[in-house]
Amino acid sequence: MRLPEGVTITEVGPRDGLQNESRAIPVDRKVALVDALSATGLTRIEAASFVHPKAIPQMANAAEVMASIYRRPGVTYIGLVPNEVGARNAIETGVDEIAVVVSASESHNRANVNRSIAESLEGIRGVASLCREGSVPWSGYVSTAFGCPYEGAVDPAGVLEIAGELRNTGAGAIALGDTIGIANPRQVSEIVTAFFRELPGAPLRLHFHDTRGMALANVVAAMEAGATQFDGSIGGLGGCPYAPGASGNVASEDMVAMLHAMGIDTGIDLDALVAAAWLAEETVGRPLDGRVKRAFPKPAERARAPDSSHVS
Amino acid sequence: MRLPEGVTITEVGPRDGLQNESRAIPVDRKVALVDALSATGLTRIEAASFVHPKAIPQMANAAEVMASIYRRPGVTYIGLVPNEVGARNAIETGVDEIAVVVSASESHNRANVNRSIAESLEGIRGVASLCREGSVPWSGYVSTAFGCPYEGAVDPAGVLEIAGELRNTGAGAIALGDTIGIANPRQVSEIVTAFFRELPGAPLRLHFHDTRGMALANVVAAMEAGATQFDGSIGGLGGCPYAPGASGNVASEDMVAMLHAMGIDTGIDLDALVAAAWLAEETVGRPLDGRVKRAFPKPAERARAPDSSHVS
Repeated sequence: MRLPEGVTITEVGPRDGLQNESRAIPVDRKVALVDALSATGLTRIEAASFVHPKAIPQMANAAEVMASIYRRPGVTYIGLVPNEVGARNAIETGVDEIAVVVSASESHNRANVNRSIAESLEGIRGVASLCREGSVPWSGYVSTAFGCPYEGAVDPAGVLEIAGELRNTGAGAIALGDTIGIANPRQVSEIVTAFFRELPGAPLRLHFHDTRGMALANVVAAMEAGATQFDGSIGGLGGCPYAPGASGNVASEDMVAMLHAMGIDTGIDLDALVAAAWLAEETVGRPLDGRVKRAFPKPAERARAPDSSHVS
Repeated sequence: MRLPEGVTITEVGPRDGLQNESRAIPVDRKVALVDALSATGLTRIEAASFVHPKAIPQMANAAEVMASIYRRPGVTYIGLVPNEVGARNAIETGVDEIAVVVSASESHNRANVNRSIAESLEGIRGVASLCREGSVPWSGYVSTAFGCPYEGAVDPAGVLEIAGELRNTGAGAIALGDTIGIANPRQVSEIVTAFFRELPGAPLRLHFHDTRGMALANVVAAMEAGATQFDGSIGGLGGCPYAPGASGNVASEDMVAMLHAMGIDTGIDLDALVAAAWLAEETVGRPLDGRVKRAFPKPAERARAPDSSHVS
């Protein structure tokens, strides 16, 4: 297997995770979660979304969250913005980086923000100008890059075209998002390979959801194709608005546990990350899907007689 | 990616899955589950374990189960046996194939069956003789092939030595078992590659548990190294005796969904398999970890307005 020596994780639980929760989480709990995450060795945390609270009540108080968290040196705190108003607010709170979103499928973009893809890209150019003025780097998500809840299959050529447009507009990185958790390893391998061929030198992040349990397999396929940056969500926070009750983003601690087992460095303390996963579960008050935390402490440390014989 | 055109799944839920449940399932429910599974297109089902009911009460009534199931033409019904007594009983009920188990680590083998590995292999030679007399094929599991709950790391050379011994004794196939769900894709790639190098022509099955969420990633790594046979457990039935509350075997329906998405044939009807997964959940009366069934029907078919904006 061709694998990288190290991988960078962007933690998106406080944003993509919590925005999918049915109830809003109080500011102090959000802050406690972000601070627990920044203590794990994570260097990138998407901490807030500067959307209008009417659109996503769960993401209200973004400015308060940003003002209350401990700004740990060396950690990049990222704010998601939907438009120029959001970007101004985000820059005012002192985010280190801004994230924008555009879908790869017209139907999803329309349903998501009531704009065409072209209109979204135009809006992103406005955000990019503000970022340049404020000297704040930004990156762009391409949602539904592996499949759309409305249109089904999504043309990889269209995904790469949008990625190229974002790159030309000044995106520091492109994150391909598997919004509905439908990507499979073969497809991931092909798109990542095509990305690096078409956009040589462009930093790529992969954002997987675990709706169908394929997220970690996709991470491995992406690494084999050259990717070294992944989004994760602590505990597996989040869900899928198109499949109520389904699993959320890939659990950061499951991903880190796998990477470390494979000898791939992340700079993250797994024990601390698992502790943060338990905190995330307590924060939302429902069981989360991350698996590693249920297997901790490691079996070798808690060895005891098995319950039954002929275990295979 | 180098991938096979087709893969054969052995369904082990009725055996490895149910034996890990805290309560025993009535015979008629076991039979209904096996019959639902044989209607999906699965061609191999591990239907019962002929261990003494005192050792594993959950597996009592193996003979009754075998006598009551519909023996669908084209399906191989497999019985697990711990020793020659079990093998005689299994052959008497007319199983199509017998499975035996030996651990790759002395401590686990001792804890599991209170024998040394050498003693287990001696017992397997006795079972093999009975199988030859009865013209019943048999295969051998090597448990803890990727890690031991007592000893930690397991030497791949020792695993391959035991596999070779089973092969020499007449095993039709060898199944390497990740008993505690600790295998990682890099390790799987290395062991599978070594297996085919050391034992050319020997049929290999991989038996993954999803304790740490790595099972599907391991399936892909194994396929890339040449493997084409995998065990799955419907719904993700089962667990890990060394980590109470942890996930069980890899969910058959999640594996099949991934394989089909990758264009790899299994001969299985995914819709029927998902229905069987729901039946498995009903049978054990607790939520199972398989993910695909929570995402069904497919998102494209249930498309509706999203709950929130800026989904990535």
